[in-house]
Amino acid sequence: MSLEVGVLGYRFMGKAHANAMARLPMFFPDAPDVERSVLVGRDEAALTDAADRLGFDSIATDWAEVVDDVDAFYNLGPNHVHAEPSIAALEAGTPVFCEKPLAPTLEEAESMAEAARNAGSDVPAGCAFNYRFVPAIRYAKRLLEAGELGEIHHVRGRYLQDWLVDPEAPWSWRNDEELAGSGALGDLGAHTVDLLRFLVGDDDLAGEMVGVSGHLQTFVDERPVPDSDETRAVTVDDAYSAQIEFENDAMGTLEASRFATGHKNDHTIEIHGSEGSLRFSLERLNELEVMRTDANRGYETILVTDEDDPYVDHWWPPGHVLGWEHTFVHENYEFLSAVESGGEFEPSFEDGLAAQRVLAAIEESDEAREWVSLE
Amino acid sequence: MSLEVGVLGYRFMGKAHANAMARLPMFFPDAPDVERSVLVGRDEAALTDAADRLGFDSIATDWAEVVDDVDAFYNLGPNHVHAEPSIAALEAGTPVFCEKPLAPTLEEAESMAEAARNAGSDVPAGCAFNYRFVPAIRYAKRLLEAGELGEIHHVRGRYLQDWLVDPEAPWSWRNDEELAGSGALGDLGAHTVDLLRFLVGDDDLAGEMVGVSGHLQTFVDERPVPDSDETRAVTVDDAYSAQIEFENDAMGTLEASRFATGHKNDHTIEIHGSEGSLRFSLERLNELEVMRTDANRGYETILVTDEDDPYVDHWWPPGHVLGWEHTFVHENYEFLSAVESGGEFEPSFEDGLAAQRVLAAIEESDEAREWVSLE
Amino acid sequence: MSLEVGVLGYRFMGKAHANAMARLPMFFPDAPDVERSVLVGRDEAALTDAADRLGFDSIATDWAEVVDDVDAFYNLGPNHVHAEPSIAALEAGTPVFCEKPLAPTLEEAESMAEAARNAGSDVPAGCAFNYRFVPAIRYAKRLLEAGELGEIHHVRGRYLQDWLVDPEAPWSWRNDEELAGSGALGDLGAHTVDLLRFLVGDDDLAGEMVGVSGHLQTFVDERPVPDSDETRAVTVDDAYSAQIEFENDAMGTLEASRFATGHKNDHTIEIHGSEGSLRFSLERLNELEVMRTDANRGYETILVTDEDDPYVDHWWPPGHVLGWEHTFVHENYEFLSAVESGGEFEPSFEDGLAAQRVLAAIEESDEAREWVSLE
Amino acid sequence: MSLEVGVLGYRFMGKAHANAMARLPMFFPDAPDVERSVLVGRDEAALTDAADRLGFDSIATDWAEVVDDVDAFYNLGPNHVHAEPSIAALEAGTPVFCEKPLAPTLEEAESMAEAARNAGSDVPAGCAFNYRFVPAIRYAKRLLEAGELGEIHHVRGRYLQDWLVDPEAPWSWRNDEELAGSGALGDLGAHTVDLLRFLVGDDDLAGEMVGVSGHLQTFVDERPVPDSDETRAVTVDDAYSAQIEFENDAMGTLEASRFATGHKNDHTIEIHGSEGSLRFSLERLNELEVMRTDANRGYETILVTDEDDPYVDHWWPPGHVLGWEHTFVHENYEFLSAVESGGEFEPSFEDGLAAQRVLAAIEESDEAREWVSLE
Repeated sequence: MSLEVGVLGYRFMGKAHANAMARLPMFFPDAPDVERSVLVGRDEAALTDAADRLGFDSIATDWAEVVDDVDAFYNLGPNHVHAEPSIAALEAGTPVFCEKPLAPTLEEAESMAEAARNAGSDVPAGCAFNYRFVPAIRYAKRLLEAGELGEIHHVRGRYLQDWLVDPEAPWSWRNDEELAGSGALGDLGAHTVDLLRFLVGDDDLAGEMVGVSGHLQTFVDERPVPDSDETRAVTVDDAYSAQIEFENDAMGTLEASRFATGHKNDHTIEIHGSEGSLRFSLERLNELEVMRTDANRGYETILVTDEDDPYVDHWWPPGHVLGWEHTFVHENYEFLSAVESGGEFEPSFEDGLAAQRVLAAIEESDEAREWVSLE
Repeated sequence: MSLEVGVLGYRFMGKAHANAMARLPMFFPDAPDVERSVLVGRDEAALTDAADRLGFDSIATDWAEVVDDVDAFYNLGPNHVHAEPSIAALEAGTPVFCEKPLAPTLEEAESMAEAARNAGSDVPAGCAFNYRFVPAIRYAKRLLEAGELGEIHHVRGRYLQDWLVDPEAPWSWRNDEELAGSGALGDLGAHTVDLLRFLVGDDDLAGEMVGVSGHLQTFVDERPVPDSDETRAVTVDDAYSAQIEFENDAMGTLEASRFATGHKNDHTIEIHGSEGSLRFSLERLNELEVMRTDANRGYETILVTDEDDPYVDHWWPPGHVLGWEHTFVHENYEFLSAVESGGEFEPSFEDGLAAQRVLAAIEESDEAREWVSLE
Repeated sequence: MSLEVGVLGYRFMGKAHANAMARLPMFFPDAPDVERSVLVGRDEAALTDAADRLGFDSIATDWAEVVDDVDAFYNLGPNHVHAEPSIAALEAGTPVFCEKPLAPTLEEAESMAEAARNAGSDVPAGCAFNYRFVPAIRYAKRLLEAGELGEIHHVRGRYLQDWLVDPEAPWSWRNDEELAGSGALGDLGAHTVDLLRFLVGDDDLAGEMVGVSGHLQTFVDERPVPDSDETRAVTVDDAYSAQIEFENDAMGTLEASRFATGHKNDHTIEIHGSEGSLRFSLERLNELEVMRTDANRGYETILVTDEDDPYVDHWWPPGHVLGWEHTFVHENYEFLSAVESGGEFEPSFEDGLAAQRVLAAIEESDEAREWVSLE
Repeated sequence: MSLEVGVLGYRFMGKAHANAMARLPMFFPDAPDVERSVLVGRDEAALTDAADRLGFDSIATDWAEVVDDVDAFYNLGPNHVHAEPSIAALEAGTPVFCEKPLAPTLEEAESMAEAARNAGSDVPAGCAFNYRFVPAIRYAKRLLEAGELGEIHHVRGRYLQDWLVDPEAPWSWRNDEELAGSGALGDLGAHTVDLLRFLVGDDDLAGEMVGVSGHLQTFVDERPVPDSDETRAVTVDDAYSAQIEFENDAMGTLEASRFATGHKNDHTIEIHGSEGSLRFSLERLNELEVMRTDANRGYETILVTDEDDPYVDHWWPPGHVLGWEHTFVHENYEFLSAVESGGEFEPSFEDGLAAQRVLAAIEESDEAREWVSLE
């Protein structure tokens, strides 16, 4: 029997997940059978068209009628519609997969995580931090877990884009605090915080983030509304930076911007430990740069496409590189397998909430102009 | 109505093309509808399993019963089975798409090209040089066609792999002259020759290749046969190099190896013209390095993922990188569109033959120890 | 007539400056004649040996007898001996060149800058921020001054070394607050702060740094004393990070560490403006990566060795790279020319003091756990 | 007592060697004392000026009066004046250091090598292949000698410049066969051939080069003569390529060009062995990229500036990079030490001759359009 999946949202993320589901049978034959059952949205015409293109059986304009009818509910809408449908689904015992950041506010994120806890451990509630599913990141995780980098001293994460550097770039919901919660911080910083938690958050590595000093900046205060003569206020950050303290004395710097001219989708992670260092860049996502003092003098560029590299045996021979979208296939494979088996899935709503706490603390720190404790 | 496609071969290339066809509807909505109709092979059990996984409606163990029944015939088998089924299909008026190199011998390649000519221009006969469909390569082609590199002086192409450097790596058909024709030369060099023809072969650029000096080398003379105590002779080259003269006085060096330790699938192209230079590496296939004297002092790394870059608008926003397999989607889109419209497709069998002539001349030069003219 | 120069300090920096002076006649024929007149230190035997090797005419063990006898006084001693001899020299009207950071404490730095002001504008007082004299940095400065990067949004500076990551690495004066003032902050961060002030500090670029949030960390609390069984406390930072606000709304992150495994002397600067971006790394000091939206889509690697690049015409033809030590030759050329002509030299003691104010604010912020204003 | 050195030639190479000699006392205290005794040339005024700037005691316009008066004779003139003075010096028992290529013709090179043999092993005769003295190249040599790359399969060397790509670039002696012997081949290819002989020429590595197939090309046939309305014929190659066979079955490709737009002085060496690979680029001469199968999956970028790296302990701490000119200091140190001790120096005239044989065979092959044996 197939898993019937309902998906709210049919734009960028809708396409990414529909594609991922469509590719499972050929590349992950042990994945559950999935039926793209119903696509949820408001604009019926656009929805019909998208359902056809993305391979959905039906459409619905009211998520409330969908959340308890399906075997899994994907919430891929804008941030301000994350909480209500997700909670309703969980209350109906339906596994939920929600885009990041978990919610525009910490309060909503907490409600969502509570709903997930109440639903029980056999109802997976996943948060869409897809970069955990990059093979090179999984490979880095293996190295870190094996202690190959030793004690962690420094972490660095930055996510650079430039699509808002033009002051005439149009206003969208991503520029609005009510709809998005925050700007670069929530959209990009959420990924960075989650990746660092994933990679070095273990007790025997850097441990939890325990304090932050944050800084948010809006460079352009208002932007033109498309198809109108008006401008609307930008009420979120265009960029943020943060300093981080970890439980085990590591220190970190974080940064994201939509004003980093020349950078399109440049998410980089750097880690220095007592026994080695590593570097990753999303724009070269098949590569991991690794330096281990017992084997190297400098960084070694590892092309993470060997057969025994994470997820790679499902795809192509060594050296045949994967793309950005493959992270979604891996993510869907793991989530849908968890749905089928009633098992756990990570990153969970708890992980989404943990990231949200850090983001909220960065905002709080920015307002207070002082460090904020996360303990 | 759907195009019914028959595919001979269900391993690496079979999977790559089946995947490509499966992805067309979501990303290339104007592509013809395609039915993966019949999968052709010898081992019925393996074939049934593959047909199921790759989404084919039926199987057949005799290609002869298939070639005139389908709307397009894909010949993805080993090199020594390229000619006969392809020619039969073309004689039946069925468009053919054949893996590269076109054939193990120049004679067979000539017969195939003749069959294609006889079939007429409304019966596309395509040769699977998929690297023509890398967005960065298309972007390079645009630059070259616009004359941005000026007069071409130097080209350089090399294709490095290392899967045979271990003398205990097992014997396969790829090591056998009868089955494969040649080794690194045909398998890898064919790609290089075709890409260079594509990029600089125009009359107002380097023009045709007019002379070659070639060198073939076999480093390990026999290899163990899997699941046996025997070894079998390696009768093809492990590596080749060549010097090339072009019609318009450009000069080139080519190289490929299966013994290039540390390189998995490293196909690089470099071109120097009077007004600029460019570099491409398959392992970083989203990038093109470009140097134009009117704008640059050094090479600029262009991430070819902008909306107006070739094929990119079908996929994801800027900075969301594509993988190796996407080249097959583009290639299938173009070929199947040509099949539907009865239009032309390039690279054609003529292109396959032209590459083969260069490869044959390289072999001939290696034996004669002197330059061989291609004019 | 030659300028007679007295130099305090004969180790690393003494050698770097003696070499620089020795090379002026051949490469900067319009530089003043310089006599390495007297080398000052405490250990007479070591001093005699060094004077011989470094080409000094005489030695002295009391700087007080030197500072008013020479035409220029170089203070290359440890940080805690910067103030007194430098001030004495300036009071005697002798031009002073002092290593960075200007002093271990802000108070001393202020006294030194005051002494420089009192000495008058025809008595150059230089602070040894040699990285201002890297040709690629000068080239970057030209671009920035010409407005080619537009309005500055982001700056990033980090200086990574790893010589203390081993807990058994020996204690030295650089680990002691009394002698050094601070650790990575003063030793490495001073360079970063100065370079950023130099590059984007102009009013029409980022302007002055107006606020900082700093974080200092000591990973190893005590270290073995060489040739003894004892350990001594580490009373300075092993690493620091900071967030910076600029006058004109740019934001910055700074970082330095002696625990960055795999990095030897890796000082990187990155700047994003509305019209372009640039990147520099000291370990590839002949290169500058530049991205300008009117000419580029990605970063272009400029080898700054062309004849019309800053200082390059004094050296070798294009592509013949310079080394780290060449920055000292340029620096000495500029300083000694200023001494001869009674002209101005930058970076001056005022620049040294300005950097020191930022470093002190970073320390103060670290203690207060809140932002500190620099206005 | 000092070694008195006579130097013929005072332009680019004269400056590079004079600088190298001047720097020995401070950095190589065990080097012999050297007196830049006499500078030899034709234009007395220019010579006087150069002698002053480069620190020579006297000048001479007739080399014949110098060669037996000095302790060592440096022949840094154009290629066509290499043979006669060098042979005269050697016949007088004076050690000679001669720029590369050893001579414009193989015959002259043979005479020079014969003169060196006749002079005896205590009269060093060195050929100026300065790239043997790059620390990273010496480090590579150590790896190769220790067998860390295993059996050698592939070598690749290319030397790219672009100073002649403009057809209006002026004619000089370097474009004339009589004066220079050959063009890119002798000027640049000589370096490549020597470096490869140095690195892999040992019997247990690739061994000697035993066969070549060469190709020379002149893109622009005549060039303007400076300060005149005339043009003069270009009678040498603007670029060459070659394929090489080695004694032990390795294969190689060589290339050099003065038409490689965007490349200033880009000499790269790549080697693939059964156990590893390495890459070097002169424009990043402090770095060596190494891949060893027992320690690496990809190339590791080694910054060859550690204290125990070749020659580095004479200079600066780790991470403080050297420049192009440092290779001359190392070369002069070794040559002058050999002169003082009557010991051997490599690369010798024999090495110069060996390289010349390869270059001559490349030219011969180009004319004959067939492989030429070197055995």
